[in-house]
Amino acid sequence: MMNKYRLMSPGPTPIPPEVSAAGALPIIHHRTPEFGEVFTRVNENLKRVFLTENDIFTYAASGTGAFEGAIQNLFSPGDKVLVVNNGNFGGRWVKMSRAFGLEVTELEYEWGQKADNDEVAEALANDPEIKGAICVLSETSTGTVNDIEGFARAASSVVTIVDAVSGLGACTLRTDDWGVDVVVAGSQKALMTPPGLGFVSVSERAMRMHEVSRMPRYYFDWTAARKAYEKDPAQTAWTPAVSLIIQLDVALQQLIDEGVENVFARHVLLGRASRQGIKGMGLELFGPDEDSNSAVTAAWVPEGIDGKQLVRMVFREHGIQVAGGQGALAGRIFRIGHCGYFDAFDIIATIAATELAL
Amino acid sequence: MMNKYRLMSPGPTPIPPEVSAAGALPIIHHRTPEFGEVFTRVNENLKRVFLTENDIFTYAASGTGAFEGAIQNLFSPGDKVLVVNNGNFGGRWVKMSRAFGLEVTELEYEWGQKADNDEVAEALANDPEIKGAICVLSETSTGTVNDIEGFARAASSVVTIVDAVSGLGACTLRTDDWGVDVVVAGSQKALMTPPGLGFVSVSERAMRMHEVSRMPRYYFDWTAARKAYEKDPAQTAWTPAVSLIIQLDVALQQLIDEGVENVFARHVLLGRASRQGIKGMGLELFGPDEDSNSAVTAAWVPEGIDGKQLVRMVFREHGIQVAGGQGALAGRIFRIGHCGYFDAFDIIATIAATELAL
Repeated sequence: MMNKYRLMSPGPTPIPPEVSAAGALPIIHHRTPEFGEVFTRVNENLKRVFLTENDIFTYAASGTGAFEGAIQNLFSPGDKVLVVNNGNFGGRWVKMSRAFGLEVTELEYEWGQKADNDEVAEALANDPEIKGAICVLSETSTGTVNDIEGFARAASSVVTIVDAVSGLGACTLRTDDWGVDVVVAGSQKALMTPPGLGFVSVSERAMRMHEVSRMPRYYFDWTAARKAYEKDPAQTAWTPAVSLIIQLDVALQQLIDEGVENVFARHVLLGRASRQGIKGMGLELFGPDEDSNSAVTAAWVPEGIDGKQLVRMVFREHGIQVAGGQGALAGRIFRIGHCGYFDAFDIIATIAATELAL
Repeated sequence: MMNKYRLMSPGPTPIPPEVSAAGALPIIHHRTPEFGEVFTRVNENLKRVFLTENDIFTYAASGTGAFEGAIQNLFSPGDKVLVVNNGNFGGRWVKMSRAFGLEVTELEYEWGQKADNDEVAEALANDPEIKGAICVLSETSTGTVNDIEGFARAASSVVTIVDAVSGLGACTLRTDDWGVDVVVAGSQKALMTPPGLGFVSVSERAMRMHEVSRMPRYYFDWTAARKAYEKDPAQTAWTPAVSLIIQLDVALQQLIDEGVENVFARHVLLGRASRQGIKGMGLELFGPDEDSNSAVTAAWVPEGIDGKQLVRMVFREHGIQVAGGQGALAGRIFRIGHCGYFDAFDIIATIAATELAL
């Protein structure tokens, strides 16, 4: 039988047909009122999804690039930073911080465990020289979602940086209410847009830190970004990924039309449905069985089954692309992404296909 | 009358309908054999356009980002570098080199003038501590194309870095024959693809320099890029801009089908047609009247006419988007881009519209 292609990975994720169609529109020049109108609307709508009044800078880059920008713009070589590491991306931010000459206090947890915010507060109290704290919202590698409200409270004495690449729009994140200084995100997850755009929202406290930071940088420099952003109409400092921004405009409009709170609620439901489906098959969840885990569901592959083979079989026999495990979990877990353009029937199809493949 | 939209700027440039249509294809996952097949073909075809056997790394970034990567990967803070500056982009690479703590020997020329390669050789002979030399192929801000064959010869004692963002595929550049170590390019000019992809080709000599460079970097790190590139199938280190790479695949196939030498010849003809058209209107060319200037044609705006107003009028009354001047030339020159998906009739339409607007 023909298999319809269903992308159920935690990123990139499928995009709505209207966003798809916008990808075929003619390229327009980026220093024109026509592009300015789109970009201004995108900036306004991004703020509504980030739940912030802070400036949000948009880069032609993957989320990793926008994250590098945050490190380059906030710190100077030798600065101390605290990084919560409970998965592949937490681990990446440890490595990246060190690559930029930062002294890292690493709070390491088993993959799948949530960060302990009491330990965050304790580590910061023990070392008043630490200038910033980094935590992942939704750890793509495990599906586990950290308590960012508690993290921002525990780390309120320093600048807080949250990797929301796979979480933004899928997991509740109240940037301003919770006092998160810097939020990094990408286009290719819950924002329902192709990969290639990275975002960073920057509080005034973070902008003041940026002003004294001495890390070498150019492409991701926030002063250059703000200078372009404050033009009328707003611009990017360097050539933007025009077609992706035009697609993002369509996607953001759909999120705003659905209502950001409703989008969060839909993802909570999708997470519940996935976890129930996994348990219904008699499989064991990887990570907590909590409503907050609304972006990705990870499950143990049963003993004796090769998880990589399972992922391939679900794709080859049923056209459904789920994801395997990363790092030490490769072959041992599989992951169903549901951050973005997903509804309940996508989950049902995926659970059914997995059951058939097992 | 209805105006058909014609993008005649030096970048981003219009894209062929087949490339446009590919932008509406479903997003696929990047760690799959399906994406690997596309990316492997893209890598092979990029080499045919770059005329090199060197590895070419692809980034989700604008050309400025890929250029920053070249600086981060080759040098250490305090290293000396020579930069040819005869336009806006030469000037940008001076600023960027300084931002990364390099000591810059700047060879400055009037905008529109070509670099003097004897002076390049002399500057390098005078300071044996200089480790690298940077030059722009086609200076987008003026249309002037530097003699890169001569530049690479003059600078053969050091690593040579060429900004070919707006030149690659429009102006002859024989990377390996001429011995250029590092070529930086972007998707949005002659490669007929939307903006958002940056490329860098890296010679073995450049890779050896990279191995000892101590500049902090992560996103653009060549070791990370090569490690992913050497996987089977080839990958990018971080999430790639999947849809742009799928579009690039279609565009590169069109260039290969036309024949790279034929593509160069077409651009030479387009440059000639543009210059003849400008002169035929009684306007004065900005920059040399040479066949090598095959990517962008710049012309002085006649005395008493506001160049910004002219660009706006050509767009509003005729739907044709040309570009104005940059920096000190803002309002004084206008630029017709013809690097990419252009034929002779596009030039005729543009010349006719400009004549009507004057």
